[in-house]
Amino acid sequence: MQRQIYLDNSATTRPYDEVLRYMNHVAGEVYGNPSSMHFMGIEAERLVKKARDTIAGSIGAQSREVYFTSGGTESNNLAIRGYLEANPRRGNHILTTKIEHPSVLEVFKYLSDKGYETEYVDVSSEGIIDVEDLRKKINSRTALISVIYINNETGSVQPVDEIVNIRNSVNKAAALHIDAVQAYGKIKFSPARMGVDLMSLSSHKIHGPKGVGALYAGRHVKLRPLIFGGGQEALIRSGTENVPGICGFGLASEITLRNLEGNFQKAVRIKNMLKELIQSELTGYKIISPDDASPYILCVSFENIKAEVLLHHLEERNIFVSTGSACASRKDLHSHVLRAIGLEACYMDGPVRFSFSSFNEEEEIKEAVQAIKDILPKIQIHKRRGGRI
Amino acid sequence: MQRQIYLDNSATTRPYDEVLRYMNHVAGEVYGNPSSMHFMGIEAERLVKKARDTIAGSIGAQSREVYFTSGGTESNNLAIRGYLEANPRRGNHILTTKIEHPSVLEVFKYLSDKGYETEYVDVSSEGIIDVEDLRKKINSRTALISVIYINNETGSVQPVDEIVNIRNSVNKAAALHIDAVQAYGKIKFSPARMGVDLMSLSSHKIHGPKGVGALYAGRHVKLRPLIFGGGQEALIRSGTENVPGICGFGLASEITLRNLEGNFQKAVRIKNMLKELIQSELTGYKIISPDDASPYILCVSFENIKAEVLLHHLEERNIFVSTGSACASRKDLHSHVLRAIGLEACYMDGPVRFSFSSFNEEEEIKEAVQAIKDILPKIQIHKRRGGRI
Repeated sequence: MQRQIYLDNSATTRPYDEVLRYMNHVAGEVYGNPSSMHFMGIEAERLVKKARDTIAGSIGAQSREVYFTSGGTESNNLAIRGYLEANPRRGNHILTTKIEHPSVLEVFKYLSDKGYETEYVDVSSEGIIDVEDLRKKINSRTALISVIYINNETGSVQPVDEIVNIRNSVNKAAALHIDAVQAYGKIKFSPARMGVDLMSLSSHKIHGPKGVGALYAGRHVKLRPLIFGGGQEALIRSGTENVPGICGFGLASEITLRNLEGNFQKAVRIKNMLKELIQSELTGYKIISPDDASPYILCVSFENIKAEVLLHHLEERNIFVSTGSACASRKDLHSHVLRAIGLEACYMDGPVRFSFSSFNEEEEIKEAVQAIKDILPKIQIHKRRGGRI
Repeated sequence: MQRQIYLDNSATTRPYDEVLRYMNHVAGEVYGNPSSMHFMGIEAERLVKKARDTIAGSIGAQSREVYFTSGGTESNNLAIRGYLEANPRRGNHILTTKIEHPSVLEVFKYLSDKGYETEYVDVSSEGIIDVEDLRKKINSRTALISVIYINNETGSVQPVDEIVNIRNSVNKAAALHIDAVQAYGKIKFSPARMGVDLMSLSSHKIHGPKGVGALYAGRHVKLRPLIFGGGQEALIRSGTENVPGICGFGLASEITLRNLEGNFQKAVRIKNMLKELIQSELTGYKIISPDDASPYILCVSFENIKAEVLLHHLEERNIFVSTGSACASRKDLHSHVLRAIGLEACYMDGPVRFSFSSFNEEEEIKEAVQAIKDILPKIQIHKRRGGRI
């Protein structure tokens, strides 16, 4: 197979080889059902516990505060609906922003249909939550606030500490849920120390397996399940545990957290190099990610370019990027996030997301920019010549 | 590692080696997000489609009628809640039996809290639904009927065709959901041809991976999602697809269905041998599974024995069985299924479930019965001597 330059790590990552080996071992050898009372079940349960301890430790939580789910989307759904169902007297006003992942926005739409009063806090042109607007919108009936930690399209980082402070000063009883899917394993944080009540994590964004995620819920937080049954995950999430997946998530977390600082510095170098090369080699672009965004994401829009066309030309050279976010790319013709930050019309068709992982190397960035430089003149829409599309 | 005699295949199965190899390949090489527009995503999507075609083909369904979930429990939850939410005008009366899996019973309890009128159809001492009681209980407000195809504790097989006929004659608009988790890959069926509207399937019961299942919903059936987000699975089940898991499920289904008839005959031989050896070698037992139960499950209770004690003595000899069902074993001290079929008190503590797969051999059965024969006298509660427990 030809070498692939995979710059779409915010969509999903390639699992670590160690994770694949471990999962293969667990699936083949420790295949018992953790609910079984015999050794085969107890051994499976022990491995699930070990993974839970790892995930909990990685965010300074207690093990009993971590519930495994089938992924970040389920975690977001469970956090919001599970909290509201378990706390019906907390009010029926819920808050979020316009730059959330669809797994939050669609739950809000559903809850709006169900009679909840849903409100959306404004964001700046940098994609940062307007904390004064948040202060205005929280009220005594606010049951829950849900905010994405690092936005999946632009990499903008939300000021969670400020959000906590405002919540504490206006309505301390309002639960705060943070969608940390793009933040986990990239920056270090602890929901408990930050004052966050609920936090969603995903495995496949940190070189772990797909189909696994976790929800942190502080021990003071009451939740009602979304999926009922045999009472697994302390009654909060039934269904036979995905033991190999959970184990793979645990190991991926361990490896990622061990190298967090080094990976972060590497991402800074790679992203800076990409930015500098774009600035020196290309014209007619706009860097959409704010300067203080996550080093793992660079969103750039090219003037009079359809991002999709650029994407396909790049993939012919085995370079993989995304237009907006993978999660929304086939539905949202124009990204709801980029609309929310007020991007100019000439750039709305052109946003390309480069997203990095520790697997990327600087050589790959040079090659990608060279490829874009070759491709752009061929695909630019020359409006003056009569709109070749 | 010492040879293990694993007779707990209704709890979960060891994945086929081919499935493990294929999943490992997909996870490491085809790691794109199926929502990504580039080749890495399209290739992942192609493999998901292939698995969907396989699962659909295996039950005579169309591919668009199959939705992947995180497992049988989620499928049961989605079938029941998803159907009722999407069809609010169909009435608020829902029916099931007392011998369902907790993932159905607990959903019914939840819905009862929410104002649904829930009723439970009687079962015979053989664990078979009382069809006359069903006929009495269906009414014009019945929105949904949920029945387990093969019971996970006793192996009793429900007469789905009769259930369909009664539903059709009394209230054709009532949706019929069949929990086919223990039936899939064991017997051949097609929900569409049977007149079943919704059917739950699981992967890890047929030597596929844990963490994956499917829901069949006939194309005439309207469903509302339980998990909202990016709109995967035709908007019915959001979340990045567990591509390796889905692929593993597809391959496990292919292998299992290809050998269905041979496996079934082997299970018949193994179960008959176990029954005959119990009858010739042991005393003070009661075979709980009805004669026409699935050949994959034999539930036997030993008089004045605590099943848990027998289980632990067996596991010391590397023989793995279950007490009742794994899913309920830690909560239900006395199985709700065995209570429902009216088992005598002296047998309530002693039910042991032997459950088979094509991996089992006749030699293993001989060894297991010899072990039980050795163990029983040591653990029998001798009431006449003053109740040693």
